[in-house]
Amino acid sequence: MASLSGSRPPLFVTLLLFLALALSAEAKVRRYRFHIAYKYKSPDCFQKLSITVNGQSPGPTIIAEQGDTVVVEVQNGLLTENTAVHWHGIRQIGTPWSDGTEGISQCPITPGETFVYKFVVDRAGTYIYHAHYGMQRSAGLYGLIKVAVPEGTVEPFAYDYDRSIVVNDWWHKSTYEQATGLSSVPFAFVGEPQSLLINGRGRFNCSLPSASGAVCNLTNPDCSPSVFTVVPGKTYRFRIACITSLSAISFGFEGHNMTVVEADGYYVKPFVVDSLYLYSGETYSVLVKADQDPSRNYWASVNVVSRKPDTPTGTAILNYYPNHPSRAPPTAPPAGPLWNDTAARLNQSVAIRAHPDHVEAPPAASDRTIVLLNTQNKVDGGHVRWALNNVSFTLPDTPYLVALKYKLKRAFDARPPPESYDYRGYDIRSAPPNPNATSSSSIYRLGFNTTVDVVLQNANTLNPNNSETHPWHLHGHDFWVLGHGAGKFDPSAHPAGVFNLVDPIQKNTVPVHPYGWTALRFRADNPGVWAFHCHVEAHYFMGMGLVFEEGVEKIGRLPDAIMGCGESKRLLRP
Amino acid sequence: MASLSGSRPPLFVTLLLFLALALSAEAKVRRYRFHIAYKYKSPDCFQKLSITVNGQSPGPTIIAEQGDTVVVEVQNGLLTENTAVHWHGIRQIGTPWSDGTEGISQCPITPGETFVYKFVVDRAGTYIYHAHYGMQRSAGLYGLIKVAVPEGTVEPFAYDYDRSIVVNDWWHKSTYEQATGLSSVPFAFVGEPQSLLINGRGRFNCSLPSASGAVCNLTNPDCSPSVFTVVPGKTYRFRIACITSLSAISFGFEGHNMTVVEADGYYVKPFVVDSLYLYSGETYSVLVKADQDPSRNYWASVNVVSRKPDTPTGTAILNYYPNHPSRAPPTAPPAGPLWNDTAARLNQSVAIRAHPDHVEAPPAASDRTIVLLNTQNKVDGGHVRWALNNVSFTLPDTPYLVALKYKLKRAFDARPPPESYDYRGYDIRSAPPNPNATSSSSIYRLGFNTTVDVVLQNANTLNPNNSETHPWHLHGHDFWVLGHGAGKFDPSAHPAGVFNLVDPIQKNTVPVHPYGWTALRFRADNPGVWAFHCHVEAHYFMGMGLVFEEGVEKIGRLPDAIMGCGESKRLLRP
Repeated sequence: MASLSGSRPPLFVTLLLFLALALSAEAKVRRYRFHIAYKYKSPDCFQKLSITVNGQSPGPTIIAEQGDTVVVEVQNGLLTENTAVHWHGIRQIGTPWSDGTEGISQCPITPGETFVYKFVVDRAGTYIYHAHYGMQRSAGLYGLIKVAVPEGTVEPFAYDYDRSIVVNDWWHKSTYEQATGLSSVPFAFVGEPQSLLINGRGRFNCSLPSASGAVCNLTNPDCSPSVFTVVPGKTYRFRIACITSLSAISFGFEGHNMTVVEADGYYVKPFVVDSLYLYSGETYSVLVKADQDPSRNYWASVNVVSRKPDTPTGTAILNYYPNHPSRAPPTAPPAGPLWNDTAARLNQSVAIRAHPDHVEAPPAASDRTIVLLNTQNKVDGGHVRWALNNVSFTLPDTPYLVALKYKLKRAFDARPPPESYDYRGYDIRSAPPNPNATSSSSIYRLGFNTTVDVVLQNANTLNPNNSETHPWHLHGHDFWVLGHGAGKFDPSAHPAGVFNLVDPIQKNTVPVHPYGWTALRFRADNPGVWAFHCHVEAHYFMGMGLVFEEGVEKIGRLPDAIMGCGESKRLLRP
Repeated sequence: MASLSGSRPPLFVTLLLFLALALSAEAKVRRYRFHIAYKYKSPDCFQKLSITVNGQSPGPTIIAEQGDTVVVEVQNGLLTENTAVHWHGIRQIGTPWSDGTEGISQCPITPGETFVYKFVVDRAGTYIYHAHYGMQRSAGLYGLIKVAVPEGTVEPFAYDYDRSIVVNDWWHKSTYEQATGLSSVPFAFVGEPQSLLINGRGRFNCSLPSASGAVCNLTNPDCSPSVFTVVPGKTYRFRIACITSLSAISFGFEGHNMTVVEADGYYVKPFVVDSLYLYSGETYSVLVKADQDPSRNYWASVNVVSRKPDTPTGTAILNYYPNHPSRAPPTAPPAGPLWNDTAARLNQSVAIRAHPDHVEAPPAASDRTIVLLNTQNKVDGGHVRWALNNVSFTLPDTPYLVALKYKLKRAFDARPPPESYDYRGYDIRSAPPNPNATSSSSIYRLGFNTTVDVVLQNANTLNPNNSETHPWHLHGHDFWVLGHGAGKFDPSAHPAGVFNLVDPIQKNTVPVHPYGWTALRFRADNPGVWAFHCHVEAHYFMGMGLVFEEGVEKIGRLPDAIMGCGESKRLLRP
C-alpha cells in the first residue's frame, strides 16, 4: 500500500478493498493448532500430570464471529493415548464428522496423528470445547469458544467489557485410576473433587495428609488465584462456562447481583440472581455492574451443590481497580446457597425463558415422544452402571457415522432401544427393585425432519433416599426446554398442562433434578449421528447416554480421517 | 467314540486316529485370549495401577512345542490407550505383520478392538512377550513363552524339573509420568527402580517417606515372595528371562552353582557360574542341583549391576522340601557381584559360545558392515535423546510395513541413515564435543539374502566418565555374536583377528558394555520390516533404535487389521 500513499486510489481499488473487507468480516476462516500433550501442572498447588492444549489447561480460547469457519488442527502428542475433541454447542450443520465424539462421529485420533476439525460457528454465543474420549476432559483437555455477533448486530443488553470464566472440578488421582475404580467390582467412585478451579486455578491445602508424598506448593504460580479486574461504575458481561466432571455448582460475586442474559448461546428473558446455579456443559452470560464499595476487592466463589460438599469453596478475586489485584478481600469467601435446596434449583431452571424479542417458538406438536427413566443398575457381573429404560449404553469400536453410512452391520446392536418404561408401575422414589440391566450399543433412529420430544425421568439410585442431578447434553442440535417438574412425569396427562410452548429457552444442555423430570423438544433436521448423554464424565462413562441418528442417507462421502478403526478397516482396499 | 467301545475299531480308523494324533503332536494350534486392562496391583506391596493380561502381571505363560502355531487374540480393554504386543525371540517367518511392533509392523490396537496374532514358534527355547508401544512394558504388560522341543528330541543336557523365572524392575510412578519427564526440558530421568520383581513379586519398605500418601501394605498377598520348591538331590532347569525396563542384573541362588545351558533359545557350551548377569530382553536356562544342606531354605536374589544401585536386592525363596515354603533363610540375601565390574560382565559375554554339538557356523563373510556409534545428545531444543551415528530414531505414525508395501511415500524419511561414523576421529571416552543430533524416521534397507554385520560402538554419555550398558534386540532374526571388546572397534583392523567365526552363539539380544563394542552378523532372509533397538524402555523411547527392511516386495497382501492409522487411511475406498 506504500505506493498508493499520497495519491488517491482509483475507485475500483477502493471498491475491491471494501468488498474484500466486507466478505472477510462476514465469513473469516479462524485457524488454530492444538498440540495435545501431558504436562505437569499444579492448578490447585498439587502437582499432577494434566492433558494440555499447547501447554495450557484450560486451553486457548477460540474466538470467532458468527458465520466464520473454524479450522482446528488437533495434533495428538500423547504417548500411547488417543484423543478426540468435541465442540460443545456447535451444531455441525453439514459437518457431522467434525463433532469430535469418539465412537460416534469418528475413530480416535491416534498418537502422532493430526486431525483437522472444520466447522461453521453459525450462532453467536458462548461455547466449550473438550475431549470426548474416555475421561480425558477430567484430565484437563477443555477450553472456551466465544462467538461474537456479526458487526452491527445489536444484542438485547449492553455492557462495557466482556470477560470469560470457566469453572471445573479437579481430582488428584489420574483419570486412569478413576476409570479403573468405576469399572471395578467392587465399585470405587471417584468421590468428591479435591478442588474447584476458576479459569484453571484453585487451591489445595498442602498441609493435609493427602498431600504427603506429592509435590504440593502453595507458592507455585500455577495456583495463584484468577483475578477479574473491574473499573468502578462499569458493567461487565461475564461469560461463565461450567465444565465440571461431576459437580453441580453455585457461582457468585460476593456482594454483587448478576443479571442472566444468555444461556447456551440464546438470549434469556433477563432475571437477577445473587448466586447462579450451573450444571456441567452449560454456559451463561451475566451482567455485573461494579457498583460496590471500590476500596476493597471481592470474592468470586464457586461451591458444590446437589451433592453433599466435601470440597472447599473455589475462589477468584473480583479486583476493583486500582486496588492491588492480589489483595485478599477482608471477608470469608461466600459459602453459597444450601447444597440440598433442590426446589431453588428447580426454580432457576423454570425461570430461564427466551428473551421476549428473540422467541423462536417450538413446533406445536411432536411426532414422537421418548421417555427415558434413568436408573443406577448392576450389569455384567455386578458392575455399577447407569441405564436408560434399563439399557446401559456402550460405545462401539466403529463410529456409528461410518457404520451407518457404509452399512457395516456388525458394528453395533441394530435392535431399537426402548421408547419408554413402565411409568405407571415404577416407583421413582425407591432403589430399583431389580437392579439388573443390560448393556447395548443400540441407537434411536429418527425420521428426518420429524419433531421429537424427550422426557428425562429421574429416580432413586441404588442407595436409599438418593437421587442425583444429571445435566443432559444433546449434540448436533439445540432443543427447546418444554418443562421441568418434581416427581413423576405422566406422558398421558402432563403435556397439555405443563409444557411451555410460548417462550421456552433453547439450550444444548439441561439438568434433570433429583426425583424430577425435564422435557425437551427438537427437530431432527441435521443429518448425522448425535450423542445425547449425561455430561457428568463418570456417568457417561458408566453408560448414561444414547445416540440419535437422522438423515444419515443425506450425507456425502465421509472423510478418510474419521475412519480406520474397528469394522471400518473392512473398507481398506490397497 | 462311545459307539466303538467294546468292539475293536477297523484298521483304517486306527490308522486315521494315529495320523491325526501324530499330526496334532507335530503342529498343534495353541490358542490364547489376552484381555489387556488396567488393574490395581501391589507387586512390591505398594499399590499401583498396572497393565495386566487377564488380570495378571506377569501375564499367563504361553506354552507350545516347536512347530506349533500360536494364536493370541489380544483384546484391548484399556480405556483410551492403544496397545501392541511383541513376541520377543519369535522370528515371525512368513508373518511379519504379527511382530507386534507399533509403527513398524502394525497400527496400534485401539481400545475395544481385538487383534489376532498368529505365528509359528519354529524353534524350541525360552522367549518373552511384552507390549511394544510407548512404555507399556514397564507398566506390567509382559510374560513368558516356553517352546518345548518336539517329543523324542533329546536336548544336550538333562534335568528333572523345568521352572521359570522372570525378573523385572519396578517404579511407583506411572509410565505417563516417566515418559513426560523423559520428553521434558529440563530432562527428568526415571531414576533407579523402587523394586526388583521376581515373577512379579518384590518388596518395598512401606515405612519409607516415599510410601506416604499411598496404599502400601506389607501383608498384601500380591507381594508375598515367589517360592521355588526343590526336592533335595534333584536337578532343576530354571528358565530365567530378564525383562527389566532399565536395569542390568545379576541373578543367583545363594550357595548354589548354575550351569548355563541355553541362551535366547540356543544351546550353550555349558559353563558354570555362581552369579549370572542378565540384560533386558535376554533369556537363559541354567541347571541347578539341589545339593546343599536340605534343612533350610536359600535365597534367590537379583541385584542391579552396571548402574550404581539404589534398589534393594530382589528376593525369592529357594525352598528345600519339606521345609516350610515361606520360612526365611537364616542368612542375609546375597548382595551379588560388584555393580561396576565391567570386565567380569564382558568376560561372561565372551564365554557364551554355541554348544559343540549344535554349532551353526555363520556365513564366512558379510556383504555389508554397519557401524553404529551410540551417543547421548540434545535434539530439537534441548531434549535429551539417544542417537546412532548422530541420528535419533523417531517412529512414524504409519507402520513401515504398510508404507513400504503400498508405497505411501509421505509416511517416513526415505533418506538412508549413515552407515558409520568418524571412528578414527571420535573420542568414545569423552562426552560428545557437539551434543546436537537430528531426529529421523529413516531406515536401513537391506539386500534380500545378503549377510549383514553390525558393530555397536559404545561411548561416553553427556555426563563425564559415564558409559552405560545397552542390551540390543533384533526383531525377525537371530544373529551370531561375533565378538565383544573393550574400547574402540576399528572396522579396518579388527575383524580378521577378533571375530569368532568358529562357534559364536546365536541370540536375539546382546549387550554392548560401557566403552566397549559388540559385533554381530545376520542373514537378511526374512521378508519384513524389523526393529533393532536398545531394550532399555527409556532408551528406545529416547531414540535408541533403528529399523531394517528386507524383501518387502516378497510379502503378499497385508491383513487389514494392521492398517487404519496415519497414511494408511489413504487406502480406504468405501
